[in-house]
Amino acid sequence: MKYLSVQETAAHLTACESAEILIHRSPDGDCIGSGYALLYALRQMGKKARVVCHDPIPERYHFMLPEVQTLELFHPELIVAVDVADEKLLGDGLLEQYTGKIDLCIDHHISNTEYAEALCLDGQAAAAAQVLYAVLKEMPVTITKEIAACLYTGLATDTGCFMYDNVSPRTLRIAAEIMEQHPDIPYAQINRNMFIVKSMGRIRLDQLLAGQLESALDGQCMLICVTRSLMEEYGLDESELEGIAGFPLQVEGVQVGIVMKEREKGVFKVSMRSADWVNVSAICQTLGGGGHIKAAGCTINGSAEEAKRILIDAVAKGMAKA
Amino acid sequence: MKYLSVQETAAHLTACESAEILIHRSPDGDCIGSGYALLYALRQMGKKARVVCHDPIPERYHFMLPEVQTLELFHPELIVAVDVADEKLLGDGLLEQYTGKIDLCIDHHISNTEYAEALCLDGQAAAAAQVLYAVLKEMPVTITKEIAACLYTGLATDTGCFMYDNVSPRTLRIAAEIMEQHPDIPYAQINRNMFIVKSMGRIRLDQLLAGQLESALDGQCMLICVTRSLMEEYGLDESELEGIAGFPLQVEGVQVGIVMKEREKGVFKVSMRSADWVNVSAICQTLGGGGHIKAAGCTINGSAEEAKRILIDAVAKGMAKA
Repeated sequence: MKYLSVQETAAHLTACESAEILIHRSPDGDCIGSGYALLYALRQMGKKARVVCHDPIPERYHFMLPEVQTLELFHPELIVAVDVADEKLLGDGLLEQYTGKIDLCIDHHISNTEYAEALCLDGQAAAAAQVLYAVLKEMPVTITKEIAACLYTGLATDTGCFMYDNVSPRTLRIAAEIMEQHPDIPYAQINRNMFIVKSMGRIRLDQLLAGQLESALDGQCMLICVTRSLMEEYGLDESELEGIAGFPLQVEGVQVGIVMKEREKGVFKVSMRSADWVNVSAICQTLGGGGHIKAAGCTINGSAEEAKRILIDAVAKGMAKA
Repeated sequence: MKYLSVQETAAHLTACESAEILIHRSPDGDCIGSGYALLYALRQMGKKARVVCHDPIPERYHFMLPEVQTLELFHPELIVAVDVADEKLLGDGLLEQYTGKIDLCIDHHISNTEYAEALCLDGQAAAAAQVLYAVLKEMPVTITKEIAACLYTGLATDTGCFMYDNVSPRTLRIAAEIMEQHPDIPYAQINRNMFIVKSMGRIRLDQLLAGQLESALDGQCMLICVTRSLMEEYGLDESELEGIAGFPLQVEGVQVGIVMKEREKGVFKVSMRSADWVNVSAICQTLGGGGHIKAAGCTINGSAEEAKRILIDAVAKGMAKA
């Protein structure tokens, strides 16, 4: 494995005749935007390119795809992974097919497992799209409207619309440059579809979750317990419950948000989130789990009431220590 | 009334010895941020300054206020309104006190009623904070951390965290400059408190509203009807229902969102919002109301069911015409 600079990466891509672009499973706005921005850039240079993903591209991201979906048959000279921190994130099937065969990875995850032969990594970048913008600027490529829309979507996705602490002055300036060169892209509409619009099912789920909020430790800890019986009552499956870990943190005054999901009878998979200063990784470690300072997890066995008591005790101790 | 350039406005402020800064009632992040940024700038230059508002500053904006709240007693040489499009927005009491006496207005509303003796207006600016940033850059003032936090908050507030179509490359570049000069401001935390965190009451209200959503015209129109009896049942008052007009638009596929509030028995105040291409101003005009293309309103008399039918018919006709 060798690290490539932005210039070396640009030269590598410019030299190839064809490329297969791999993005991670459960694709989001950043890997789709970055993957297709690279595809458009390579095609602009007369090269063959295709994007490969384990899962279908969700409909709200279809505006980034080529108008005519051509199935290009070619044997790729270069296999490039974009926004893929770990080969495993390619998903089953693709993992077996591509493991050990990836020539180049363009990424922004500091945790990148260095699986590719060459790696262009900027762990400070807010999004893969931010790294890719730098690479494309070093290639003989025009940032067309379609490339611009893809890169903007990547930047917006991974920053929560420029909200999170991964935003740097550079992130904002790239968005400014894109907007200046392409004032006719419907940025606000893209943001609305990504950040505001929800399916009716998701609205009903939020409504249900709001009804399950339980307050502990004078409102400093908010907890949601999703039992098997609740899931059965409302016909929820596991996949619908992805991404709800942050829900309790939206309540004013909360420091620690907990979501407990009953995986099987009496076994709770716990996600713990910190709003600010509480180290939830340390708390989850006392319960046999772990993770990041602001996002951690563990598994608790017992009844829902026992599990809640154990969790709240651990949070109280963790907060007292800090 | 005369229009002042940014430079003339800076000179005017630099020449004064003291200023009273007026902001609008129901103060938001932009008028508070802009008002206090100006206060800090003037005090930095050794001048006396105070901010005056009809309503108390909401707690989530308190981080922008001076640590020590000094009541400065002075007779202001200059009376400056910031982010106030119309004198009436000062609120009762202040309106009577200040009408005809405002020396300078710094604003970004194209609809400004030109009530001040001198007006520095940039109708293209996303926020008053964006205009104020330009003015402060022309004054012998350092953009300190406290000024930067105020201006950033103003920009973020009025753009929905850089989400809306009022964002320009300049808006993003000002945010980038501020962030570069003051990397130690907790931007993500400020955004979280403004855009994510909700009171438990607000969460309960959203939960209630989600339960009231009614779909019409194959889901292209979503409607919420808040009757007197619903308000009584849940103990809601009028003020709690401010800002709910956008709620139905978050549903996937919706083109027109309607919120009907029963003001008195059989009288419905209607807010209509458009997600994209439907002109709701034209629709509301057919019902005796009016407004902007994407945000309009009207009043309908009748039972809830009658009012709904009238509204949905009008929306269907308006959509068919377009």
